[in-house]
Amino acid sequence: MNRRKFFRNGSLFTLGTTLLSPFSSTANVLNLDTLDKNKKAKNIIFMVSDGMSTGTLNMADLYLNRKTGKGSNWLQLYKDQRVNIALMDTASASSIVTDSSAGSSSWGGGVRVKNGVLNVGPNGEKYMPIWQKFKKAGKMAGCVTTVPITHATPAGFCVNNDSRNAQEDIAADYLNLGFDIMMGGGDKYFSAGHREDKKDMYAAYKAKGWQVVRNRKEMLAAANDKQILGVFGEDALPYSLDRANDKTLTAETPTLAEMAQKAIDRMKGHKNGFVLQIEGGKVDWGAHANDVGALLYDQVAFDEAVKVAIDFAEKDKETLVIITTDHGNANPGVIYGKDANANFDSIQKYTHTNEWLLNEIKPNFTVAQVRELVDAMNGKSISEEDAKTVLSYYDGLHKEDGGLYNYKKVPFKAFAEIQQKGNSVGWISMDHSADYVNLAMFGPGSELLKPFVKNTDLHYLMLQAAEVENKF
Amino acid sequence: MNRRKFFRNGSLFTLGTTLLSPFSSTANVLNLDTLDKNKKAKNIIFMVSDGMSTGTLNMADLYLNRKTGKGSNWLQLYKDQRVNIALMDTASASSIVTDSSAGSSSWGGGVRVKNGVLNVGPNGEKYMPIWQKFKKAGKMAGCVTTVPITHATPAGFCVNNDSRNAQEDIAADYLNLGFDIMMGGGDKYFSAGHREDKKDMYAAYKAKGWQVVRNRKEMLAAANDKQILGVFGEDALPYSLDRANDKTLTAETPTLAEMAQKAIDRMKGHKNGFVLQIEGGKVDWGAHANDVGALLYDQVAFDEAVKVAIDFAEKDKETLVIITTDHGNANPGVIYGKDANANFDSIQKYTHTNEWLLNEIKPNFTVAQVRELVDAMNGKSISEEDAKTVLSYYDGLHKEDGGLYNYKKVPFKAFAEIQQKGNSVGWISMDHSADYVNLAMFGPGSELLKPFVKNTDLHYLMLQAAEVENKF
Repeated sequence: MNRRKFFRNGSLFTLGTTLLSPFSSTANVLNLDTLDKNKKAKNIIFMVSDGMSTGTLNMADLYLNRKTGKGSNWLQLYKDQRVNIALMDTASASSIVTDSSAGSSSWGGGVRVKNGVLNVGPNGEKYMPIWQKFKKAGKMAGCVTTVPITHATPAGFCVNNDSRNAQEDIAADYLNLGFDIMMGGGDKYFSAGHREDKKDMYAAYKAKGWQVVRNRKEMLAAANDKQILGVFGEDALPYSLDRANDKTLTAETPTLAEMAQKAIDRMKGHKNGFVLQIEGGKVDWGAHANDVGALLYDQVAFDEAVKVAIDFAEKDKETLVIITTDHGNANPGVIYGKDANANFDSIQKYTHTNEWLLNEIKPNFTVAQVRELVDAMNGKSISEEDAKTVLSYYDGLHKEDGGLYNYKKVPFKAFAEIQQKGNSVGWISMDHSADYVNLAMFGPGSELLKPFVKNTDLHYLMLQAAEVENKF
Repeated sequence: MNRRKFFRNGSLFTLGTTLLSPFSSTANVLNLDTLDKNKKAKNIIFMVSDGMSTGTLNMADLYLNRKTGKGSNWLQLYKDQRVNIALMDTASASSIVTDSSAGSSSWGGGVRVKNGVLNVGPNGEKYMPIWQKFKKAGKMAGCVTTVPITHATPAGFCVNNDSRNAQEDIAADYLNLGFDIMMGGGDKYFSAGHREDKKDMYAAYKAKGWQVVRNRKEMLAAANDKQILGVFGEDALPYSLDRANDKTLTAETPTLAEMAQKAIDRMKGHKNGFVLQIEGGKVDWGAHANDVGALLYDQVAFDEAVKVAIDFAEKDKETLVIITTDHGNANPGVIYGKDANANFDSIQKYTHTNEWLLNEIKPNFTVAQVRELVDAMNGKSISEEDAKTVLSYYDGLHKEDGGLYNYKKVPFKAFAEIQQKGNSVGWISMDHSADYVNLAMFGPGSELLKPFVKNTDLHYLMLQAAEVENKF
C-alpha cells in the first residue's frame, strides 16, 4: 500500500488548512526528511511510562545529569533532533482526567471509553484492540511491563472487557488471542492457588506450546522461537530502587530494559514485523504513593528501556518507536528554595522506596528506631517530632489510606510531606491529573505526528505508519 | 548577512551529529519549509506567560474548550502545525529552579546568572541585554506586562543590575536607554511621591519627548510616532478576572492584548523592524497564591495577546513569534475523581480572584458572612467548618504568610485547600518548580528551534533569526 494514497485518505492529516497558511513550515533546521519519507514502519515499539507528569520526566533527566553528567536517553533524542515531539490530550469519554484503562483503550481501540473500561463503548460496542489488528495483519505482538501483565495498560492494547479489574479473564484472553510474548507481574491472576476458578493458567499456556518463565534467569534462557509468558511477581514487580539494593530481587527479577530486549529478540526475526508495548507501570504507582525514590528510579529504569528500543530501531531502520505516557499523576516537581539543589541531590542517597521503608516500621518501634531507619534508607534523618508523627500511624487506629496501590495502608502522604523538607519535591495529590503530556516519535512514521494530538489519534497513526488498512 | 553562513558559524546548531544519524528527519507531514527557509526575522515578538506550569497551559485550554468549544490560541497553533515546539530547561546559575530575573537574564544576556540578578555575572561581568543589542542594530524595542514594567522579566531584556529589586533605578535606566514603548504597572517606581529620591520620573520621561499614559483611554489615544511610557497601577495591574467584573478597573486598565496591539502599532512601521516582549506577569502571581481564578483568567488574557501577535505576524510575514514561560510555578493540575469535570467547570462561575475575596473578609465577619461571600464570588459555598477555618486567620494572631506576592498576608494556602474540594485543582507548593517548560515558535527563524533547548539558547537564536551579528 502506498503511503501517499494512505495519507490522502487519512482522516487525521488533511492538506487543506495547512496549505492556506503562509507559515506552515514545521521543519527543523536540518531537513533530512527525504531520508525516511514514505518509508513503512514494519515494526512498532510503543513505550508508556505510566502516570508520568512533566515533572517526572524532568526530575529523571535532572537526576541523571547531576549524577552522571549525562541526561536521560528520552531527552537526548530531543537534543540530537532525532524525534518529532508533541503534546497529547489524554482525556477519556467520562472525564478530563483518564484512568489507565481508558487511556490505553484510546490508543488500543481508537475510541475514548469511560474510565475503568477496556475498549467497550457505552452500549457494549467492542472496538478491536490494535495488537489484535496487527496480529491479523500478520505481525507478531507482545507486551512487557513492571505491573501485572494483565493490568490496564497492556490489556488496553489486547482485549475488550467491561472492567479493567477482570484480570483473571484477561490472563485467559491473552492465551486465546495467541500473542507472542507477554511478560510482567501478576502471578495471582495465573496460578491455580490464587485464581477464583482454581485453573492453572501456567499449565494452560504450556499446553498451547508457550514457554513459561518465572524468574530472570529463566527469561534470559528462554528460546526465541516459541511464545513466552513471563510472570515475575505475585502482583507488580518490585520498584527498581528496592530491586537494586536487594540481592534476591536483583537475581530473581528482570529489569524493564531486559524484558524489552528479550521481547525484541523474540520477535525481531519475523518476516512481517512485530509490535511491542513496553510499560514502566510502576512510575504511576510511585506517583500514587508520592514516593519519590520509587517514582524517580522507575522512570530511570524506563529510560534504560528507551535506550534498548532506540538502539534496536536505529540499526533496524524499519521500526517506529513511540515514547509517551497515558496521563500525568500527582504533578511532582522540585520546588524553589535556597537548598533546592542539595535537597534534590539527596535522593541519590536513597537506598529504598518509601513503600519499603514504611513497611519496615512496626508498631512497637521507638522514635529513635524510626529515625535510624529513615537515616539508613534516605541518607538523612527526620526530626523527633516527625518520627512521632510517622509512628502515630502504626497505632492500629490512626490510619492513612491515601494512595491507590496502598494495600497495607502505610502513611505515604504524611511521610512524603515530611520528606519534602529534605528533598524539595512536592505533589498536588495522590492521583492522576488532566495535564497534557509529552510524546516523542522516532523512525519511519514519526513524520505523521502533529504537535498536538488526542490520545485516540495514535491508534490511526500506528496503522498508517505500518500501512495496515483499518478494515477489521 | 547570509543565513547559511550565519548558520555554519553558529554554536547552537551543528551539522555533524545530525548528518550521522540515519533517522534525523524531524520534518512533519507537510513539508512546506521551502516557504520560509532562510528568511530573515525583521521583527521578534517574545511572549512570556510568567510561571506557567504545563498544567496552567492545559487548564486554560480545557477551560476555553469546555466553555466556548474552542481551545486556546496557543495550542491551536500546534493543532494547525504552524509552529515548531520544544521543551526548555529553565535553570539558573545558582539553582535548578530559577527565579524570574535569572530566567529573563538567560534569554536577555545569553548567560545564566544567579537568582535575583539581572545580567550580571559572579565577578560583576555585565552581559549586554538583548533589547539593547537590537536597539544598536537599528530596531525599535519595547516591553508590555501586567506587573510593574520595572519587574524582573522586562528588566532582564533591558538592563544590568545586581538586584531585581532596584526597580527605581530600572525606571530611570529605561529612559536613558531610549526604548520605544514600555507599559505595565509600577507607579510606585515612577512617581515622585513614592520614590526614595523623590524624583518625578514621569516628568523626566516627558522632558525627553515621551508620551506618558496612565489609563486605558490615554493609551489608546497615544500617538504612534513618539515613545510611550504606560503605567496603569501602583504596583501590578489587577487580575483579569477582577478587572472583568469591576467597571472602574475595566475602564481604567488596558488588557494585555490591548497593550500588545498598541506596542505593535507603535513600532510596526519602523524600517529596521522591532522587538517586543509581552509578559503575562500575573500568571506567576496567581500561582504563588494558589489562586486558580487569578491564574486561569490571566492565562486566558495572555492567550488573547497570543492572537494579537500571531494575527500581526501572519500578515507581516517577517516576524518571529516566540511563546513560552520562564519557569513552572506550583505545578497546578486537575485531579482525578468522579466530579472532576463538574468541579473544574465550576471555575467558570468565579467572579473574583481569591485575592479579592480574601481581602473582602474583615475580622468582624460572621461565619455566615464568609460563606455568603464565597458563594457570591465562587458560585458555590463552603462548609461552616471551612468558613471558620478561613475566619480564624483574621484574628490578628493566626496569620498565614504563604505566597510571594501576599502583601496583606491573607490565607491563600488554607483557602486553596478548601477550594480544592470544589474545583479539583491541586498545587505542589506556592513557588517555582524545576519543570522543563513548553515553547513554541512561529514564523521566520522558527526553523532554528531544536526539540530541547536551554533557556540561554534563545538569546543566540533571536540574533541568528534576525541576522544580527553578536558583536557588541
